[in-house]
Amino acid sequence: MNPGAPPVVLTAGDPAGIGPEIVIKACLQRPHWADHAVIVGHLPSLQRAWQVLQSGRPPSFQVVDLNRPCPPAEPGALRLHPIAPELSITEIPWGQVSRAGGHIAAESVHQAALCCLCEQASAMVTAPIHKQALDLAGVPFPGHTEMLQHASALHLGVAVQDLPVRMMLATPALRTVLVSIHISLLDAIRAVTIDNLLTTLRITEQAEKRRLGRSPRIGVAGLNPHAGEGGLMGREELDIIIPAVQQARAQGLQVSGPHPPDTVFMRARHTPERTSEFDVVVAMYHDQGLIPIKYLGLDEGVNVTLGLPLVRTSPDHGTAFDLAGTGRANAASFLSAWQMAREQAGLDPGP
Amino acid sequence: MNPGAPPVVLTAGDPAGIGPEIVIKACLQRPHWADHAVIVGHLPSLQRAWQVLQSGRPPSFQVVDLNRPCPPAEPGALRLHPIAPELSITEIPWGQVSRAGGHIAAESVHQAALCCLCEQASAMVTAPIHKQALDLAGVPFPGHTEMLQHASALHLGVAVQDLPVRMMLATPALRTVLVSIHISLLDAIRAVTIDNLLTTLRITEQAEKRRLGRSPRIGVAGLNPHAGEGGLMGREELDIIIPAVQQARAQGLQVSGPHPPDTVFMRARHTPERTSEFDVVVAMYHDQGLIPIKYLGLDEGVNVTLGLPLVRTSPDHGTAFDLAGTGRANAASFLSAWQMAREQAGLDPGP
Repeated sequence: MNPGAPPVVLTAGDPAGIGPEIVIKACLQRPHWADHAVIVGHLPSLQRAWQVLQSGRPPSFQVVDLNRPCPPAEPGALRLHPIAPELSITEIPWGQVSRAGGHIAAESVHQAALCCLCEQASAMVTAPIHKQALDLAGVPFPGHTEMLQHASALHLGVAVQDLPVRMMLATPALRTVLVSIHISLLDAIRAVTIDNLLTTLRITEQAEKRRLGRSPRIGVAGLNPHAGEGGLMGREELDIIIPAVQQARAQGLQVSGPHPPDTVFMRARHTPERTSEFDVVVAMYHDQGLIPIKYLGLDEGVNVTLGLPLVRTSPDHGTAFDLAGTGRANAASFLSAWQMAREQAGLDPGP
Repeated sequence: MNPGAPPVVLTAGDPAGIGPEIVIKACLQRPHWADHAVIVGHLPSLQRAWQVLQSGRPPSFQVVDLNRPCPPAEPGALRLHPIAPELSITEIPWGQVSRAGGHIAAESVHQAALCCLCEQASAMVTAPIHKQALDLAGVPFPGHTEMLQHASALHLGVAVQDLPVRMMLATPALRTVLVSIHISLLDAIRAVTIDNLLTTLRITEQAEKRRLGRSPRIGVAGLNPHAGEGGLMGREELDIIIPAVQQARAQGLQVSGPHPPDTVFMRARHTPERTSEFDVVVAMYHDQGLIPIKYLGLDEGVNVTLGLPLVRTSPDHGTAFDLAGTGRANAASFLSAWQMAREQAGLDPGP
């Protein structure tokens, strides 16, 4: 840990979901990381979550203001930048979509993003939010990515469309960057264009080069079975993917493919027994990349937003309203996301 | 093992590929299974493969005729039903596509299929063949499935289109049946129809019921990310998959879904720690099902052709012409296929 680095900010997500619980659990499990972090969220919701956890320790939140020089964490306390103190906990029942929950979730993300953009924070780790709650709160964005893209574009003074982002999913064994995410499979096929592929490859190169200290070996998946088998099962490889790979190589990127989709992830999988053939796989659509990421379990999957002028990671699960308030939610994925944020921000990732 | 059951037939595949080597290796590794099996292939090619393996034992093939009552295996010998004895080994160089190789491969499959259809064999396990070699030999089918479909339809006196088949991929941890296989992803989306889904579900139910002795729990994957999320990302779930699942349920099948594709395979994965939620997953397209099957390695993947009036399994790899003749090819996947054939045919699978 660079002791002079600004803190990592942790957003507690929708306060009706498992976000507050997993953020507190994660802090209690990694006290050294927590000493260099600040939670961004709604104080009454976090106090309620603390009670649910029955950790035996009295809740101790040290309220700070990230817009001013941040005092060091007091022993035994978790630093908190409070959001919407005017909202009462009665407006946010556990496990229910609410306007108040959506407002707190969005405002937490917005504040955390501004801290990162103004270098008052090193990175942000975001607990899950709920699309319907955002909608009830009148937030004009469906999710984190769009909010962060908008805030970053404003900060940089560029148009949102000039700030393309990509989602990377990462486990210790596999990293994959998706050409498209939440659109139908038919639209995802249409989104496989030379421009979109080159943008994905450029963003992937930049992010992974920062992490690895060298140019990453990027494996590109095909779109069709057997990567089209020379045009026998679809022409997208011949007409789009191969030209894009060739252009990226001409620009100096270490790109190979298109590889048959059914084996490229197996070939990229890093295990103690064998090194992977690729540092990262570019996947042509959502499920192509997410099926192998999630196949061995959800705890280790981390979502990293690439292309933004800030570091943002998140666990690969939702608000889990059915579990909220039970104290049983597992913080493993949030901890993985936190570790990944520290790595991407150049902080010492352990212990 | 039911000692009165007819033998399992093992086709040696394209004699220029790794087929003869892996069939012999598998027989030497499972002598008890080999005592109840008959290889179908080209004697000189199998003798050449035996020499490559340098097992220290002299080659000993006991030539039999499957069209007559089959004598028991002599101690230390592998029973062989010979194909195309008129062809010289010089016509079949290792690792090369040849007319002779294609002819032998196709004729082996044809003979093995007739044995199964006439109940002279319990099941068939097929080593890999090569599409181009079949083409050179004038075989009007691109692969095993089409050959077996044609032979079965002739035998039953029905049209080929009235004998739909489906590919199941199986590992000890996961079983998946594919709605479509070797077509472009765009065509695969078009192939997601109520009729095709109902046919897939019916074939899956029949095959798995025979194996399990009860109705299987079938999980159906969605086509779109998050299974469409209520139509937000594609309507195929609402318009096609849900109605098909409802119709199948009305017919008494234990079908659930459509489930989000990125987690359904994880939920179906059977491990020593947790039981799976589904016995088998119906996948909407080739790579959706094959990515999780292959992710942990190729050795265990077995291909089972469902819908035919015979049991046929095969390893999930190709002819590997680059490895042929080196003796280094791994028989693990062929052994898995053999074990699966024994299970599907109701023979004792171990040891």
